[in-house]
Amino acid sequence: MVSADWIAADWGTSRLRVWAMDAQDRVIASAASDQGMGGLTGEGFEPVLAALIAPWRRAGQRLEVLICGMAGARQGWVEAPYAAVPCAPAGSGAVTAPTRDPLLSVRILPGLCQRDPAEVMRGEETQIAGFIASDPGYDGTLCLPGTHAKWVRVAGGMVQEFSTAMTGEIFALLSQQSVLRHSLDRAWDADAFAAAAADTLAEPQGLSGALFGIRAASLLHPVGAGAARARLSGLLIGAELAAMRRFWQGVPVTVIGDAALATAYARALADAGCAVRQQDGAALALGGLIAAHRFGGDKT
Amino acid sequence: MVSADWIAADWGTSRLRVWAMDAQDRVIASAASDQGMGGLTGEGFEPVLAALIAPWRRAGQRLEVLICGMAGARQGWVEAPYAAVPCAPAGSGAVTAPTRDPLLSVRILPGLCQRDPAEVMRGEETQIAGFIASDPGYDGTLCLPGTHAKWVRVAGGMVQEFSTAMTGEIFALLSQQSVLRHSLDRAWDADAFAAAAADTLAEPQGLSGALFGIRAASLLHPVGAGAARARLSGLLIGAELAAMRRFWQGVPVTVIGDAALATAYARALADAGCAVRQQDGAALALGGLIAAHRFGGDKT
Repeated sequence: MVSADWIAADWGTSRLRVWAMDAQDRVIASAASDQGMGGLTGEGFEPVLAALIAPWRRAGQRLEVLICGMAGARQGWVEAPYAAVPCAPAGSGAVTAPTRDPLLSVRILPGLCQRDPAEVMRGEETQIAGFIASDPGYDGTLCLPGTHAKWVRVAGGMVQEFSTAMTGEIFALLSQQSVLRHSLDRAWDADAFAAAAADTLAEPQGLSGALFGIRAASLLHPVGAGAARARLSGLLIGAELAAMRRFWQGVPVTVIGDAALATAYARALADAGCAVRQQDGAALALGGLIAAHRFGGDKT
Repeated sequence: MVSADWIAADWGTSRLRVWAMDAQDRVIASAASDQGMGGLTGEGFEPVLAALIAPWRRAGQRLEVLICGMAGARQGWVEAPYAAVPCAPAGSGAVTAPTRDPLLSVRILPGLCQRDPAEVMRGEETQIAGFIASDPGYDGTLCLPGTHAKWVRVAGGMVQEFSTAMTGEIFALLSQQSVLRHSLDRAWDADAFAAAAADTLAEPQGLSGALFGIRAASLLHPVGAGAARARLSGLLIGAELAAMRRFWQGVPVTVIGDAALATAYARALADAGCAVRQQDGAALALGGLIAAHRFGGDKT
């Protein structure tokens, strides 16, 4: 029978993951739910969490739950206001969420914001905290590709500045819903990707004209399997690299994310002469929650 | 009672418009249907057309129908292969569509293609032919904004080259379906548009980072009504102008399209120092069909 000392939780827009932790901050059990923040309102959060962690509770025990992610957004359980960079990610400013169960002590970690240019993140800061916990002296850039790719300059254990590219969301919309969907298959041509990324990195102003060219080329002559999909991705990621040049030119980069996407980013960065390595991001959010739990434990 | 000498038709993806023409190429009646090419297959076209023009036919009369638009696509009534530029738009190459009614003579005008860089258009070439018919000596660029904006270099009565930007489709996807939809209202701030267009025209590499900034700014501080929508449009159109610079720098431009969108393009172009004028596009497709009818009449 599992008995948790505390609970770590990553509550995103579409998914909730929870870990039962022992007093030495080791995972003793975990669970997941597809009841993400996107489908819940204020009153709805506590019952979802309570049901998921019920098997891990001792009768009468006061249990601390530490949450990162969109549960702390304005439309979430309770708003955890953004901490402004430069600052340590997931370092302080956790907000207590209201609970009906007096034995449940729930705190939500804040996201990060940047005043000028305006930027926000919520969830990624905890992955970044996990990365810094494993490599406290890191001085370089973290690139976290995905729906909204984050480029994050880290030094001295703090996030110095960051920027967001909507590349993943734009790729999904264009590949699934625009006229380009007729020209894409499921395959992937890595060299076509690299060539396209080099094109828009060198001439970012070409992006607007090049996108429809994918459709036109497929109508006028045969295109190899996977070439069109890879070219669309490459054009968008090359334009992203052009926008984020100050984050990677002369700065070491660690790409954190799922293997296929991180490999594509790493290829494009390496082709551009960047010193880049890849790291799987799956365990980092938990690492950040553990670091924040220890930090918070000093204060309360 | 209307009795047509011939029929002009503009059959797009989502709409069909037909005009009953007299022997002097004057419109004597018109009709429209929402049975666009997108919802029809080969056998389905003739009955839709026949029903719409039935009131205008004389018994026993052989009637010519001249069609432009997507009805000539590969998935349309019959494929009218693209004519390669440089060439006169809607000038020749009309293809006869199969009909069960022997008294109906249906021809579909071809679209235009360009080999390198690969480009296609289908429908706009007839508007361009209408413009050239009204201004045969025009030497400049036509800009036809819309779902897929076309930039077309015209000289000597011919299309010399062209390029397509998916700006309208991308704006629709981002404003209606991406995370940015939460930050947009229905208003329009023309100065915010112009400022954003100038931003990405000057620094097109900034587009990728600037889009999410619209969301971040709306979360961090109040944004004026209409500013976010106009900024999204401006960022995309500025990037389009950067891609299309060779079409408008030192070349007069006529923007053809619906008033609000054409006004936005004309503002951005004028701010960039371009000699630009606007023209309503509603009558141009019919003008092109009339010109093609006369041209075809010489040959058959």
